[in-house]
Amino acid sequence: MVQRFERHALSPLPIGIVGGMGPYAGYDLVRKIFRWTKAGCDEDHLPVMLHSFPAWIPGRPAFLLGRIAENPGEDIGGIMVQLARCGARVLGMPCNTAHSPRILDAAMKRLQDSCEDVRFISIIKSAVDHVRSICRPGGRVGLLGTVATLRTRLYQDALEQAGLEPVVPGQDECDLVQDAISSPGFGIKSFSDPVSPRARGILLDAAARLAEEKDVSVILLGCTEIPLAIRETSLGGIPVVDATSILARELVRASCPERLNDAIELQTEE
Amino acid sequence: MVQRFERHALSPLPIGIVGGMGPYAGYDLVRKIFRWTKAGCDEDHLPVMLHSFPAWIPGRPAFLLGRIAENPGEDIGGIMVQLARCGARVLGMPCNTAHSPRILDAAMKRLQDSCEDVRFISIIKSAVDHVRSICRPGGRVGLLGTVATLRTRLYQDALEQAGLEPVVPGQDECDLVQDAISSPGFGIKSFSDPVSPRARGILLDAAARLAEEKDVSVILLGCTEIPLAIRETSLGGIPVVDATSILARELVRASCPERLNDAIELQTEE
Repeated sequence: MVQRFERHALSPLPIGIVGGMGPYAGYDLVRKIFRWTKAGCDEDHLPVMLHSFPAWIPGRPAFLLGRIAENPGEDIGGIMVQLARCGARVLGMPCNTAHSPRILDAAMKRLQDSCEDVRFISIIKSAVDHVRSICRPGGRVGLLGTVATLRTRLYQDALEQAGLEPVVPGQDECDLVQDAISSPGFGIKSFSDPVSPRARGILLDAAARLAEEKDVSVILLGCTEIPLAIRETSLGGIPVVDATSILARELVRASCPERLNDAIELQTEE
Repeated sequence: MVQRFERHALSPLPIGIVGGMGPYAGYDLVRKIFRWTKAGCDEDHLPVMLHSFPAWIPGRPAFLLGRIAENPGEDIGGIMVQLARCGARVLGMPCNTAHSPRILDAAMKRLQDSCEDVRFISIIKSAVDHVRSICRPGGRVGLLGTVATLRTRLYQDALEQAGLEPVVPGQDECDLVQDAISSPGFGIKSFSDPVSPRARGILLDAAARLAEEKDVSVILLGCTEIPLAIRETSLGGIPVVDATSILARELVRASCPERLNDAIELQTEE
């Protein structure tokens, strides 16, 4: 195996995915990596590892909102190190909330301490760079995400630094979006495949209200559960940016730029 | 990380997937493992690792049909050992052809030499046991698979040992099925997501002919690419058994029987 790794170590660079947050977001990212790859046969596809250990990572929102003390970044960092030791040279994590500095910094510290030679691709930076590339300066960007992601201003700060104006739904609507993601009765975390019509309906309503009432020019799906429900590339004529898909594209680019398939639609209907 | 592994080592047992043969079959198995899991939140899902290194494994049909000398079992075994060293205690491999004894024996030898404590769940045995459970003794089982899988009689021998009668399409139809899987112009290996209508059409025709002309009582999809195209649970009133889905079920059962969701349909429409 060592020989194999060495033989293939240069390009494409193996991609490691910290999954489990949630599990379906992990497999959605794998699928999108495959879609972004120019491949005519099995062998053209990139080396990808998905490590999905949902029960081993403390709750991200619970930590950020002060309900638990254990920082999930510790275990996330452990999984990153494990992936790097398996040969991963590019890492991605399909969970926006886990990119909050208090969590991510702890994870990156652990990764750096391991001295592994691996590059982490941020979903936040990838998505915001992409939005900036399709949006006029000062453009209004409608943002859907978990309450924890919105409260930590992960995307808002990054969008503002990129010269864009983040627009979030009203408080009641944010709570509804959170329900669509995490309600035990109908949320995407509990009903992922297929997503419940109620969860999809809430998310479509929230997106439509951002478009109609708040005059946004892009809608950014800033939670990796949401694209499991909204697969449209545009809603009411407004482009929808799926952060998972953009992360997949940037992982392919970082692994092997020659294999990046630029010809695909950013999102495809199921 | 070691602490975490030890803390969680007993149950559920981590599942390791040897992916890449092809890549979409790997992610299809992950999806089906999630579907077979009783889960109301992220943390209920099982620990799963997918290692998809398609370019590192020599061609299975090419080896079995004598076109290349390098046994892919060597690298498959290497990936199995890597998964076991990451903590996997249950292994699955979503590629029927790679279960041919000449390949699998080489892989298992490498795994045994590593002295890792891990259990391999065979897709062939899982699928045949399931077919026997839904079929009367002596029942006729229509089989779709690659030419290499059919020539090595993987399923035919196992079905006969289970007291069932395997029925394969005629030679011309087998070649068409192979094209539906591997044609560079329209095959599933090249067009997986979505599958081309032509590939799906060929497979549906082959299944229909087995049902209508050969009087089979079950159709067994004995190639992990085929369920990417055929998602029906029955065709013309005849049950369709998806070997990938059955492998997923047996992996969940081996990892954590209490989490097995027996209430799901064996296959769901997309």
